Amino acid sequence: MSDREVLAQLRAELGDALDTTDASLEAARADKSGHASTGRPLAVVHARTVSDVQATLRIASGTGTPVVTRGAGTGLAGGANAGPGEIALSLRAMDRILEVRPDDLLAVVEPGILNADLNRALAEHGLWWAPDPASRDISTVGGNIATGAGGLLCAKYGVVRDAVLGVDLVLADGRLLRLGHRTVKGVTGLDLTSLVIGSEGILGVVVGATLKLRRLTRGAVCTIAATFTDVGTAASACSAVTAAGLQPAIMELLDAASLAAIHDLLGLATPTPGEAHVTVQTDGVAAAADAAAIATVLEAAGGRVAVSTDPTEGERLLAIRRSMHPAMARLGTTLIEDVSVPRSALAAMFTRIAEIERRYGLVIPTVAHAGDGNLHPNFIFDGPDVPAVIWEAADELFHAALDLGGTLTGEHGIGALKRRWLADELGDDQWELQRQIARVFDPQGILNPGKVFAT
Amino acid sequence: MSDREVLAQLRAELGDALDTTDASLEAARADKSGHASTGRPLAVVHARTVSDVQATLRIASGTGTPVVTRGAGTGLAGGANAGPGEIALSLRAMDRILEVRPDDLLAVVEPGILNADLNRALAEHGLWWAPDPASRDISTVGGNIATGAGGLLCAKYGVVRDAVLGVDLVLADGRLLRLGHRTVKGVTGLDLTSLVIGSEGILGVVVGATLKLRRLTRGAVCTIAATFTDVGTAASACSAVTAAGLQPAIMELLDAASLAAIHDLLGLATPTPGEAHVTVQTDGVAAAADAAAIATVLEAAGGRVAVSTDPTEGERLLAIRRSMHPAMARLGTTLIEDVSVPRSALAAMFTRIAEIERRYGLVIPTVAHAGDGNLHPNFIFDGPDVPAVIWEAADELFHAALDLGGTLTGEHGIGALKRRWLADELGDDQWELQRQIARVFDPQGILNPGKVFAT
Repeated sequence: MSDREVLAQLRAELGDALDTTDASLEAARADKSGHASTGRPLAVVHARTVSDVQATLRIASGTGTPVVTRGAGTGLAGGANAGPGEIALSLRAMDRILEVRPDDLLAVVEPGILNADLNRALAEHGLWWAPDPASRDISTVGGNIATGAGGLLCAKYGVVRDAVLGVDLVLADGRLLRLGHRTVKGVTGLDLTSLVIGSEGILGVVVGATLKLRRLTRGAVCTIAATFTDVGTAASACSAVTAAGLQPAIMELLDAASLAAIHDLLGLATPTPGEAHVTVQTDGVAAAADAAAIATVLEAAGGRVAVSTDPTEGERLLAIRRSMHPAMARLGTTLIEDVSVPRSALAAMFTRIAEIERRYGLVIPTVAHAGDGNLHPNFIFDGPDVPAVIWEAADELFHAALDLGGTLTGEHGIGALKRRWLADELGDDQWELQRQIARVFDPQGILNPGKVFAT
Repeated sequence: MSDREVLAQLRAELGDALDTTDASLEAARADKSGHASTGRPLAVVHARTVSDVQATLRIASGTGTPVVTRGAGTGLAGGANAGPGEIALSLRAMDRILEVRPDDLLAVVEPGILNADLNRALAEHGLWWAPDPASRDISTVGGNIATGAGGLLCAKYGVVRDAVLGVDLVLADGRLLRLGHRTVKGVTGLDLTSLVIGSEGILGVVVGATLKLRRLTRGAVCTIAATFTDVGTAASACSAVTAAGLQPAIMELLDAASLAAIHDLLGLATPTPGEAHVTVQTDGVAAAADAAAIATVLEAAGGRVAVSTDPTEGERLLAIRRSMHPAMARLGTTLIEDVSVPRSALAAMFTRIAEIERRYGLVIPTVAHAGDGNLHPNFIFDGPDVPAVIWEAADELFHAALDLGGTLTGEHGIGALKRRWLADELGDDQWELQRQIARVFDPQGILNPGKVFAT
C-alpha cells in the first residue's frame, strides 16, 4: 500500500492526532543518543487515548506499516528513532494519573507522564515511585518501562522491574491485553509484565501501568563527599562500602576527566589532576549512623572525606554529578555508554577503560553508579556520526564488561546502537529464542523493526 | 516408541540415576496438595549434574516422552505430579552452593537445595535470601523459583522475582541457556529470567540460579499479638496498618476456625468463639518505634494488643501461625487455596468467604498474609478426592477474588488444580498468547504437559 493511502487511513481515523509537519517528523528521527534514523518517518501520531493507539495499530497491521513508539525521546540507544516508511506513535500526550491508592501502595498511570511530575503528585500522598533515572525531569514513565531504565537509587530501592505490578499492552494487531496484577503477589501463568518491561517497543505498546509505590523515606538525608588520588582507589573504596555490608541510597563516582569538565562548566576551581570524586547519600532512620560507617570505610580506603547533614549542601554536591551531561555536551558529540559489572569488579573495569584510552589515544570521561556497578563511559567526537575508531573502542569496552561478568547495557537498552553486540552477550541460541518470542507478539514484525535484534 | 525402549535409553545414559522402584514412582505421583496423578510415571531420574538433565531431555525430546520436573514435592497445586508415560525428573540431589559473594551480594546455587539450608549457610556470611515460604524447611530453591513462591516477608522484602538475577535453563531439546545477569542492572534484550520464574516447569528445567542476597537485618525483632472480636475487624485493622504508612516484616491473620483448630492441636486454652488473631513482627533499626506505631493503629481499630521484644515469646507466637497446616490435616483432607487481593480489600474478601461458607454449609478456616493481601482459605473434606461441591465453592472464591481486583493464586501457582480457571483471569487472548510463548520454548509440548494450561 502506498504511503499516501496509509496516511489517508490514519487521517480518517485519527484526525487531529495525525501530525505530518516537517518539525515533528524531523524530531521523531532522533533521541538523546545523538543517533538519528536515515530520514523522516511517514507521520507522527499523538495518541490521546487507548483507542487512538488501537486504531493506529489496526491500520499499521492492516497495511504492514512499521510503528515506532515514543515517549519524550530521551532514550540513549536510538530505540525510539523513527525512519522512512514508519509511523512514529507518540504517547507523550497520554499523561494522566488515573488512580492513586495510598492504602494499596499503587498508582495507575498513563505512559506519557514525566517521572518527576508523577513523583511530585505522589509526594502529596506521602508516596513515591522509586525508579529515578537521571533524566527524571524530561523522561516519561512509559519510556522508563520500555527501556527498563535504572537510575541512581537502584542498589537500595530496586530497578523498574521491581516497581511495576502490571501493564496494559496494545498488541501489533490492535488488541488490548491487561497484564499483571493489582496485588503484591500473583503467579497466574507466565509473567508477561516482566517480559514487557525493557522490551523497547518490540512486543506491543504500553498504554497504562499499575505502579508499585513506596512511602516517602523518613529521616534526614546525609551526604558524603570523598576525594581520592586516582579513580582506581575510588572504585575500590566504593566496592569496599558494599562489601562492608553498608547500603547507601546513592553512591556516584566521577573520574578526573568528568570532574574537570564539570568544574569548567560550573566555574568551579580546577580539580587536582588525576583525582576522582565519590558522592554518597544515606537516607532513612539510620541515615546518620550509616553515613558515619560509610565515611569510615571510605577514609580507610584512602579518601579525604566530608559528611554533611545540610540538605542544601547535599543538593549542591549532587548537582555536580547531575551536570555530567551538559559538561560532556560542551566537549563535542557524545556517545554515552552503559556497561554494568558486578560491584567487586568496579576497579577492574576502570583499569580496562584506561587501557582502551591508551590503546586508542582517547580520553573517555566516565561516571559510575558505583553502588550498583553501572558505568557510563563517554566517548567524545566531532560531527554527527560515531567514527569507526570509537565503535572499535566501544567494542573492546563491551567485551571487557562481559569478561568481568558484566553486561553491555545496565539501563539504556539495546535500541539501534547496540544490536550488533546483543548476540555476543546472549549467545546465538538465546538470541534466536528471544526473536521467536517477539514474533509471537508481533507476527508481521511491524513493531520497532530493526531495533534490539540486528536484521 | 515403547516405554521399554525409553527406559533402555535412559538406563544406558544415566545408569544409577534412573529409579523405577515402586516407592519412588508412587511418591512422584503427588505433592502436598493432596492431589495425585492418575497413575505411576515411567521412571524417576535423580539428576546429579547439569549433564544428567541434558541427557534426560535429549532422550525425552527424541522419543516424545513428557518430562515433569520435581524438587522436594512440596507444591500445593499439583504442578510437579507425574503420571503414566511421563519421566519424573528430580533435581533434589543437585543441592550444592556453588558460590557465595558477600561483596557482590549474590550466590550461585543448584536448584535442589532447601530454602532453610541455603539461609543457614548464608547466615555465616551475614547474608540471607529473602524469599521465605512457610515450607522453607522442606521446600527447595528451585521449587520456589518454579512457582514464584511468596511467603511471609513479601510486603517488606519482595517476592522471588525480586530476588533472582539469573537462571540456567535446560530447554526441552537439551540445550543449556544462561539467562540474566550477575549485575544489579542489566537490560540486554527480553527478560527471560523473569519469564522463567513462576513458569511451573513448562518452559525448561532450571538447573542453576544466581540469587540476589541481602545483608542480615540489624536490630532486634519486636512481636505484636492482637486479638479482635471478629475477623472483619481484624482484617480492617491490618488494612489500616498499611494505609497508615507502616511496614511490618510479617503480618499474619488467623480467623476463628483456624485458631480453634491450632489451639486444639497445641493443647492451648480454647479461644473465645469468633475471635480472630493478628501476629505482627517488625525488624531493622526502627523495629521498636515501628512496633509502637503499629500497636497504636491496631488498638484504635479495636484490637487487644500486646507487644514483646523477647525473641522466645516472638517465636512462640509465630509457632502458632506455623501450626496451621498440621492443625488442618487433623480435620480431614485439605484443599489449601491461595487467593490474593489488594490490601484494602482484605475485609471485603473475608465477607465473601463468610457468604460462601453460609451458602455451601462449609467451614473454611482461613489464614492470611495480611501485610500483602494473600489469603489461604482451607477447604476440608473426607477421602482423597476433592468433592464437586468444594470445587463449586472454590469457583465462587476465585471469582470473588477477581471481582475485588485480585488473583486466583498469590504464590502457589496454577499447576493441575487451577488450570480451568486460568483463562477466567487472563482472558482468552492473553491465555492463547502465553500458550504460544510456551511453545517457542517447547515446540513438542513435552514439558509438564497438562499443567498450567488446560488441554
